[in-house]
Amino acid sequence: MKFVIAPDSFKESLTALEVATAIETGFKRVFPDADYVKLPMADGGEGTVQSLVDATQGKLIECEVTAPLGDKVKSFFGLSGDGKTAIIEMAAASGLHLVPPEKRNPLLTTSYGTGELIKLALDLGVESFILGIGGSATNDGGVGMLQALGMQCLDSQDKPIGFGGAELANIVKIDVQQLDPRLQQVHIEVACDVNNPLCGECGASAIFGPQKGATPEMVKQLDAALSHFAEIAERDCGKQIRDQAGAGAAGGMGGGLLLLPSVQLKAGIQIVLDRLHLIDYVKDADVVITGEGRIDAQSIMGKTPIGVARTAKQFNKPVIAIAGCLREDYDVVFDHGIDAVFPIIHQLGDLSDILKQGEQNLISTAQNVARVLAFKFH
Amino acid sequence: MKFVIAPDSFKESLTALEVATAIETGFKRVFPDADYVKLPMADGGEGTVQSLVDATQGKLIECEVTAPLGDKVKSFFGLSGDGKTAIIEMAAASGLHLVPPEKRNPLLTTSYGTGELIKLALDLGVESFILGIGGSATNDGGVGMLQALGMQCLDSQDKPIGFGGAELANIVKIDVQQLDPRLQQVHIEVACDVNNPLCGECGASAIFGPQKGATPEMVKQLDAALSHFAEIAERDCGKQIRDQAGAGAAGGMGGGLLLLPSVQLKAGIQIVLDRLHLIDYVKDADVVITGEGRIDAQSIMGKTPIGVARTAKQFNKPVIAIAGCLREDYDVVFDHGIDAVFPIIHQLGDLSDILKQGEQNLISTAQNVARVLAFKFH
Repeated sequence: MKFVIAPDSFKESLTALEVATAIETGFKRVFPDADYVKLPMADGGEGTVQSLVDATQGKLIECEVTAPLGDKVKSFFGLSGDGKTAIIEMAAASGLHLVPPEKRNPLLTTSYGTGELIKLALDLGVESFILGIGGSATNDGGVGMLQALGMQCLDSQDKPIGFGGAELANIVKIDVQQLDPRLQQVHIEVACDVNNPLCGECGASAIFGPQKGATPEMVKQLDAALSHFAEIAERDCGKQIRDQAGAGAAGGMGGGLLLLPSVQLKAGIQIVLDRLHLIDYVKDADVVITGEGRIDAQSIMGKTPIGVARTAKQFNKPVIAIAGCLREDYDVVFDHGIDAVFPIIHQLGDLSDILKQGEQNLISTAQNVARVLAFKFH
Repeated sequence: MKFVIAPDSFKESLTALEVATAIETGFKRVFPDADYVKLPMADGGEGTVQSLVDATQGKLIECEVTAPLGDKVKSFFGLSGDGKTAIIEMAAASGLHLVPPEKRNPLLTTSYGTGELIKLALDLGVESFILGIGGSATNDGGVGMLQALGMQCLDSQDKPIGFGGAELANIVKIDVQQLDPRLQQVHIEVACDVNNPLCGECGASAIFGPQKGATPEMVKQLDAALSHFAEIAERDCGKQIRDQAGAGAAGGMGGGLLLLPSVQLKAGIQIVLDRLHLIDYVKDADVVITGEGRIDAQSIMGKTPIGVARTAKQFNKPVIAIAGCLREDYDVVFDHGIDAVFPIIHQLGDLSDILKQGEQNLISTAQNVARVLAFKFH
């Protein structure tokens, strides 16, 4: 018997590696001699750095960078076990959670810190990047990030513009001469699960601005600023970013990144699936087990369990998902490659108790699933 | 494929038949053409009447009888589909829940109402009884019940003694001449899961008296009264009930019942298993599914899922239990014939919501279990 265990983390409770280990523990009580492959997965969102560091026996690098409002913040990124790949979550430097609700204002917030994380990783000699851009506080078209990497966005006084989405309106010239030359040698995969263009009614400002603190007036101002930036970028960098699918992700970070030499926007789960070579492991698996903190109808929108299931189903392998909880509408996942889903809650309690019981309940649930798999009946 | 579905009720949420039907619904989504046997089970405790009525397509009979403190109370008993068996829960007439906490006093409470239920069933021409004696408010040695059936328990004035455990001390003579003659023709199976003797430190008064409102002084008084009753009963009825295993059940009801012509004390689950012929159905089952509202270490003490599992394991059949919730210590059930256990809670919520979602969550859980059973892998 060979089991491939490829779950995401259970947010606020267990890392993906901890989830995988708990499932393995439960299964080993029933199948002590089976082969196990544990792959801590992620979908490009929160927990991606931890999962890929764990999956590759890499390490977390702690550092200090510029926070969204210009102050300093403790941050981190991941380095793969072979030292060749940096894994970065934009939210760790430029995340909405780093700005108190009353101060959230995308006219002012910058992605500069994310650029600093990229620079620090370049200093370590990496050859490639995986960059998750979810959860940002910014609507600056990635201009802060580009500035941190040496791109000059200059105003009418020939001076660098300041931080924040509003400042983009002041750009009169973009100069890439001083862009960090090491960027020519690296490839950046950007985990991007939305197709929004940079501007317009489906653009970054209109769709994602409000959740970052933008009023309707700010949305208009921000959209115009991004549009102006796209125009200058097309003229000075020769790249059309306004209408690219995904350019509107993370306040236009998707668009800004496209100005760098070798960048590819890609579904987050696909980046992780490819990096961890899940397909090679599931080929000869008997059963694939995945999981996530919550499974619901939204899970089919690029979440880990569905990505794992679709890969497994290329070889017609059975897929079981174990979840922290299930929403009523979860059963659409049956149409997307998941064969069975089990929630782990054993009894009612308050959330903090339930989170504390997570590991034990997960082991227990996995054990019971394995016990059913062990049935030999005609 | 043949599935035998034999669960208990989920208390406060679903009857055993509703549980069985929900499990069947979930399984039928996966195995629409399988054979299903649904047996609503019980263990002799609360819900036994409903389950056996449902299992035999019988009916509930509503009536009014004497409550533990002598007032009247609406009560019920069950009549099997063939009209030959009455199913009675003592608690429906003489239950602790019928007495407000501040009035609980086993010196005063009587089992008379349970005797009236038996009499009403005799009027319907039944040939046998299943009598569950859990949850009683009484410590009267079943004397109230015996009086309702015509047995004369007389005091020194040759008058019938009054209601309650204290009155037993006044018995000077027991006269069975006027005992309902129909009792000679019927057999009574008493669901009794304890082995306590009538008297002494493991007796009815010492062990069960306190939970019925007895103070330490009352316990002594009640124990002496039961002992006196046993002495007179042995002299006048020729039966030794003091040391019989189970005589101390339900405030000595077990002992009092033994004075009737044809009475057998038996584990409640065993009565139900035998009556419903579970053994005949599991012989050629592929999988047996059982369940209960809660499964924990106490489940091995005569609860339905274990009784079902032990029966199934006589033929080495796989047994899956589905539970409203699981306590941490539930896994001892693996040593008693249950192969796998699944709790049905899908997400946190308050108890009333969770109870309302019970049916849907049960169907969903059953479906997922069936989906795993459907796996074909080497």
